[in-house]
Amino acid sequence: MNKLLIVGSVAFDAIETPFGKTDKILGGAAPYIGLSASFFNLQSAIVSIVGDDFPQEYLDLLTKKNIDISGIKIVEGGKTFFWSGRYHNDLNSRDTLVTELNVLGDFQPIVPEDFKNSNIVMLGNLHPLVQSSVIDQMESKPKLIVLDTMNFWMDCALPELLDVMKRVDVITINDEEARQLSGEYSLVKAAAKIQNMGPKYVVIKKGEHGALLFHNKEVFFAPALPLEEVFDPTGAGDTFAGGFAGYLAQSENISFENMKNAIIHGSNLASFNVEKFGTERMVNLDKEEVLSRLKQFKSLTQFDIEL
Amino acid sequence: MNKLLIVGSVAFDAIETPFGKTDKILGGAAPYIGLSASFFNLQSAIVSIVGDDFPQEYLDLLTKKNIDISGIKIVEGGKTFFWSGRYHNDLNSRDTLVTELNVLGDFQPIVPEDFKNSNIVMLGNLHPLVQSSVIDQMESKPKLIVLDTMNFWMDCALPELLDVMKRVDVITINDEEARQLSGEYSLVKAAAKIQNMGPKYVVIKKGEHGALLFHNKEVFFAPALPLEEVFDPTGAGDTFAGGFAGYLAQSENISFENMKNAIIHGSNLASFNVEKFGTERMVNLDKEEVLSRLKQFKSLTQFDIEL
Repeated sequence: MNKLLIVGSVAFDAIETPFGKTDKILGGAAPYIGLSASFFNLQSAIVSIVGDDFPQEYLDLLTKKNIDISGIKIVEGGKTFFWSGRYHNDLNSRDTLVTELNVLGDFQPIVPEDFKNSNIVMLGNLHPLVQSSVIDQMESKPKLIVLDTMNFWMDCALPELLDVMKRVDVITINDEEARQLSGEYSLVKAAAKIQNMGPKYVVIKKGEHGALLFHNKEVFFAPALPLEEVFDPTGAGDTFAGGFAGYLAQSENISFENMKNAIIHGSNLASFNVEKFGTERMVNLDKEEVLSRLKQFKSLTQFDIEL
Repeated sequence: MNKLLIVGSVAFDAIETPFGKTDKILGGAAPYIGLSASFFNLQSAIVSIVGDDFPQEYLDLLTKKNIDISGIKIVEGGKTFFWSGRYHNDLNSRDTLVTELNVLGDFQPIVPEDFKNSNIVMLGNLHPLVQSSVIDQMESKPKLIVLDTMNFWMDCALPELLDVMKRVDVITINDEEARQLSGEYSLVKAAAKIQNMGPKYVVIKKGEHGALLFHNKEVFFAPALPLEEVFDPTGAGDTFAGGFAGYLAQSENISFENMKNAIIHGSNLASFNVEKFGTERMVNLDKEEVLSRLKQFKSLTQFDIEL
């Protein structure tokens, strides 16, 4: 069975949206990625760090979804990374209220022995040096390395980000970040420049406006499913990335044509994630629902003009 | 052959974008709609009004594209509608610098005898009373009536707009206008409310973010083609509408499934329109280019997940 290695934050999130607010709930890039990837036939492991305030119940939840958690270090006396944010009325923008790095500030990732030969590596949004360190520890060259990042690292650790970008195959990034990184307003031009920085595949996430996949002169687009209500967008990008990487791990085919399918699977899974607070929807989602919504994606996008 | 009746402004536009500016050039909804629809196998006519300052050369241009202009009234001593605007750097927003209604202020549309039995009627953005008057003049019930409108009429002529909406099959409207008209932020909910106001098919145009087609519980999405440069967005919505209506007129099939194809044809034609100032690109576009870009649309959106 194919192996997917996931590195990313594991966190407490406190979220406020126009529809309500939560206390500290399970958050962080890695759980979203892992839960999303768990819908595919693969072995996955999370490499991360938490404090001893992190509930066993959350770890059990991941284990129950068949995610190896031996790479999640628990720091005695340490506190888990905490993020709190408030979304604006349109849910397209948010204010960060609190960021407490806590144990994440000294995170030295250690890849479990069993996953040093993973086929697919998904580097969730973290300091680029942490991402690089995971690549260093791989014993065999992964079939595909996917990097997620954000504007914060462009502002504070650009040289390190540019270094790790040279070592990956796919980058996932949002539209504003793609513009910032490339200095180009047109996403077509931005993607071309970013390909020259290393990753041969560039995925530009546009939130409610869908996602683009660029490779050489080719481009593919997947819409976000139009929903009656978006309840909480937290983790949508990570859920997307988890579905993308998870599907590719399962299918063992990393052609551009198959990456199109991976983008659709990622978009499909992300459409569920935003329906409830935090990871709640993903935790209780079943495969029938996923399949049924994939059919909606087909009818949303497929047409039959003969050429 | 199927007949497409187009009512809409014929104008002088003066456009400023970050890439340059024009003197008074051919503009208005009707020429954009007509030029776009001219790529299909149909008979079309424009109903509109201009002053005697309107160059014969522009009228000849329309005639050369096989558009019947007998319904364009030329007012002796009158001045043609003039609009001038300046786009912001992102091309997503613009300031109107000048609006001189001129002869358009007293426009009483007269549908040519030959087109009173048109199969498809495309009501371009105009006062809703003008749009209603065109419907009144039809001798046989058209197969499909498509209505374009804008926020201006929601602000200044809402009762008349609601009246004409009850008489049409399809409305095309942008996302902000759909929200204004329905009072709903979610486009899914907005489209449901608008369907209750009359049009059974609701097309929501999102500019660079594509277009949605809603009908009952069904929804279809077409992206805008990602372009290296958008030069001038003027007329993109009208070009889209012209492609949509033109394709439906040609194919004589107004099922939801075929409307999906119409949405793609509209998006495809609009992608050309934005590449040069005003109507320039559409005037010089050939069918080979249109076909080739349709293939790009297929590879941009089609995937092969088996379900």
